[in-house]
Amino acid sequence: MDAVIDLNSDLGEGFGAWPLGDDDALLDVVTSANVACGFHAGDPSVLRRVTDRAAERGVAVGAQVGYRDLAGFGRRFIDMDPHELANDVIYQIGALDGFAKVAGTSVRYVKPHGALYNAVVHHAEQAAAVVEAISRYDPALPVLGLPGSELVKQARQAGLAVVLESFVDRAYTPEGALVSRREPHALVRDADEVVRRSVRMALDGAVEAVDGSRLSLRPQSLCVHGDTPGAVELARRVRKALADAGVSVRSFA
Amino acid sequence: MDAVIDLNSDLGEGFGAWPLGDDDALLDVVTSANVACGFHAGDPSVLRRVTDRAAERGVAVGAQVGYRDLAGFGRRFIDMDPHELANDVIYQIGALDGFAKVAGTSVRYVKPHGALYNAVVHHAEQAAAVVEAISRYDPALPVLGLPGSELVKQARQAGLAVVLESFVDRAYTPEGALVSRREPHALVRDADEVVRRSVRMALDGAVEAVDGSRLSLRPQSLCVHGDTPGAVELARRVRKALADAGVSVRSFA
Amino acid sequence: MDAVIDLNSDLGEGFGAWPLGDDDALLDVVTSANVACGFHAGDPSVLRRVTDRAAERGVAVGAQVGYRDLAGFGRRFIDMDPHELANDVIYQIGALDGFAKVAGTSVRYVKPHGALYNAVVHHAEQAAAVVEAISRYDPALPVLGLPGSELVKQARQAGLAVVLESFVDRAYTPEGALVSRREPHALVRDADEVVRRSVRMALDGAVEAVDGSRLSLRPQSLCVHGDTPGAVELARRVRKALADAGVSVRSFA
Amino acid sequence: MDAVIDLNSDLGEGFGAWPLGDDDALLDVVTSANVACGFHAGDPSVLRRVTDRAAERGVAVGAQVGYRDLAGFGRRFIDMDPHELANDVIYQIGALDGFAKVAGTSVRYVKPHGALYNAVVHHAEQAAAVVEAISRYDPALPVLGLPGSELVKQARQAGLAVVLESFVDRAYTPEGALVSRREPHALVRDADEVVRRSVRMALDGAVEAVDGSRLSLRPQSLCVHGDTPGAVELARRVRKALADAGVSVRSFA
Repeated sequence: MDAVIDLNSDLGEGFGAWPLGDDDALLDVVTSANVACGFHAGDPSVLRRVTDRAAERGVAVGAQVGYRDLAGFGRRFIDMDPHELANDVIYQIGALDGFAKVAGTSVRYVKPHGALYNAVVHHAEQAAAVVEAISRYDPALPVLGLPGSELVKQARQAGLAVVLESFVDRAYTPEGALVSRREPHALVRDADEVVRRSVRMALDGAVEAVDGSRLSLRPQSLCVHGDTPGAVELARRVRKALADAGVSVRSFA
Repeated sequence: MDAVIDLNSDLGEGFGAWPLGDDDALLDVVTSANVACGFHAGDPSVLRRVTDRAAERGVAVGAQVGYRDLAGFGRRFIDMDPHELANDVIYQIGALDGFAKVAGTSVRYVKPHGALYNAVVHHAEQAAAVVEAISRYDPALPVLGLPGSELVKQARQAGLAVVLESFVDRAYTPEGALVSRREPHALVRDADEVVRRSVRMALDGAVEAVDGSRLSLRPQSLCVHGDTPGAVELARRVRKALADAGVSVRSFA
Repeated sequence: MDAVIDLNSDLGEGFGAWPLGDDDALLDVVTSANVACGFHAGDPSVLRRVTDRAAERGVAVGAQVGYRDLAGFGRRFIDMDPHELANDVIYQIGALDGFAKVAGTSVRYVKPHGALYNAVVHHAEQAAAVVEAISRYDPALPVLGLPGSELVKQARQAGLAVVLESFVDRAYTPEGALVSRREPHALVRDADEVVRRSVRMALDGAVEAVDGSRLSLRPQSLCVHGDTPGAVELARRVRKALADAGVSVRSFA
Repeated sequence: MDAVIDLNSDLGEGFGAWPLGDDDALLDVVTSANVACGFHAGDPSVLRRVTDRAAERGVAVGAQVGYRDLAGFGRRFIDMDPHELANDVIYQIGALDGFAKVAGTSVRYVKPHGALYNAVVHHAEQAAAVVEAISRYDPALPVLGLPGSELVKQARQAGLAVVLESFVDRAYTPEGALVSRREPHALVRDADEVVRRSVRMALDGAVEAVDGSRLSLRPQSLCVHGDTPGAVELARRVRKALADAGVSVRSFA
């Protein structure tokens, strides 16, 4: 059996006069584009451009939904009413889906962004709100999420398809949680090590936790970053190493 | 042949803690709801509520697209790049369409709001941007517009369906333009007169201009307002008078 | 010795096309106006109008600072970086102070709004951020706060003047905390009872807690609300009852 | 008599996660910092940082006021009610003045940004609104503006101090207007030529117009840009060339 993996990354995170990251470079590397939807980043012209180019390259368009917080880039937890959160999520998916439609495709999955991503790991009401939003918008839309999270658990209970992801450059606890960014070793900074971990995640479904133990994550998608020039180059190396190891890199969608 | 007319009104124009107008009362009067899409008014929870209720009552949901200007309620002309305007319009239609989908329906038409409505009467580039946005999003979506406007002209050239509307409480110049709100007699303030004009517009397709001349507008939809209690009551009287005159009030969509 | 009390209320909470509350009516009742500063409510023209009128009537202008959250009216906790929160507070005080200056006065005190008000009761970092902002902007500015709160404790430690307030229509636990709005008896709904409690707070510095015990709050200011017509009338009754009881109603500033 | 000139540049134009330009590098070159005030760019933490550093270096802080348009970076004309515009300007000056106060200084001048800068060259009502805002906030605050503009004319009539500026890298018509950016030769792209023009502007008060004629502008300040690495280097060269030519570079404030 051939090993298969998806590569996803955050795109479309500029706003107005402010660019962010190199969308074009990343679209040549990843198979799934988590496109910002305007609440934490991404103005309509950014969304138009990135969905057009993703569609041209056959990269799957996903809705990267976040809190309404441009000033905080969606990185600050907001203690929202779950019903309002569900509606904010529907609004964002719909807005992006409009551009996907214009580009001849459609939104293929949903992935929460930033503080919302972190919140739905454990916050049952907000996880339920995201699940409800997707279920009502289109119950055929998969959720891209962290193994073991509330979001993943509730999405499965609601009958949504779930795609599990791992982060190629993040350290994991033995329990499978991400080491907090406030800790000194949250990030794997050595590029060779990131590449090795990526290949192992794709081939074995496993990663070495911070205590050296083997952690079985079985990801279907690997998340790479592209908000620095070095990150794009690293993403390219990850993709090449996967190909060299005989892993088929393609979208789950 | 029976006379047929649509009644449209602006809805969903609250935002957060700030309500505006009586959406529920109007939904019992009109056949087409111009729902704000979040750029000049309308947060996601407002949109959810009004689209759900419109769908329940069989009222057609239209995208009331405007400039991104919450502080100005979309009433201030913005000299935007047409390409950016087109993308802003796509974003708004898509976002509303998400809620329409959740409500079991879809966006059935597009009507510009406020300063954008006024701009596209004469501003060729901005009219073209609105037409381009609709054509790309869904060329089967009709445009609701003012007879003689650039928007209507360009929409027809682009092959879009056009629905002409008249305002029951606005004074018209002999050329068919709306008398500017800065003029003293811009509004028809006598309720009986408004009701009489409405019936004449529906039966004869005509209205009396400010100089007394007969103006043939042939509207397919009449726009009523509901942002004051008196306005809702007047809208109800207009609807009843149309029914009493044998006019069939129903959506064009 | 004569009893003295201040009456404060939230004002300037409209935004653009959306009015909120009756600022003019309240300005004839209260002695301190907690004016929204644009982050949760209050556009510049609202701020201009309410500061002008407050100055004309001799009502003290206070900065009602909140989270940057128009869609949520500042009622949702945001887990902000304290340094960013301090800067958001400085920005808001400065903006309002500009209008106070134009009106011939200055900001006389600071009171957090909504979710920030609730957060700084117990959230030490956010309370410290508010205190730091005030200390840096003008260490002579008093803080209006809840007895026993982190904000009040830290403000005193930092050498800021503190003005304690009580809510005339809120139920209190025997420990002096506000009964949560999620509880059925959070609000004192009987108008006569509200008036009686107000007078007792001003004369005795005490209020009856929900278990019937006597709670000594010693407020220097009473907070009244004005966002409904009934609330304005109740505020008027509170003021009249205080005067009838020989309490001098005047600003602490 | 020694020649004296001020160098001004736009700073503080990042927002949240999005940086823009190299504020620190520019603060070592210019003598006046036009600091964005949050309406077109500049969140409170950006304002705090840039005002602190400007104060440390003795660079004068000016309020770079713009339209409320983050998505358009203040580069789109908005047809605002002049009274509302005046209040938007007061709000922005006040907010920045708060940070200036914290930094131990104060706002020393006002310069409109982007589309507002262009509008007040000829738009009498909007120019009057800016002048009114400054007059009410602090009639001792100078306006930095284009020679011959409505803003400059009205500011003088209102008794405000006016500081005239020229752009070192913009082409001028024989009448003294800036060649529109839509024209091919709007910008002077040769660095040596920019440096030569800067020195001539400072020493002779003159510049060569596009038709080769001599234009007497008599600027008190020269505007340099810093939003690209090359621009910062060019600004450094301009400053050095001015010093080498015996021109004293210092703030007008």
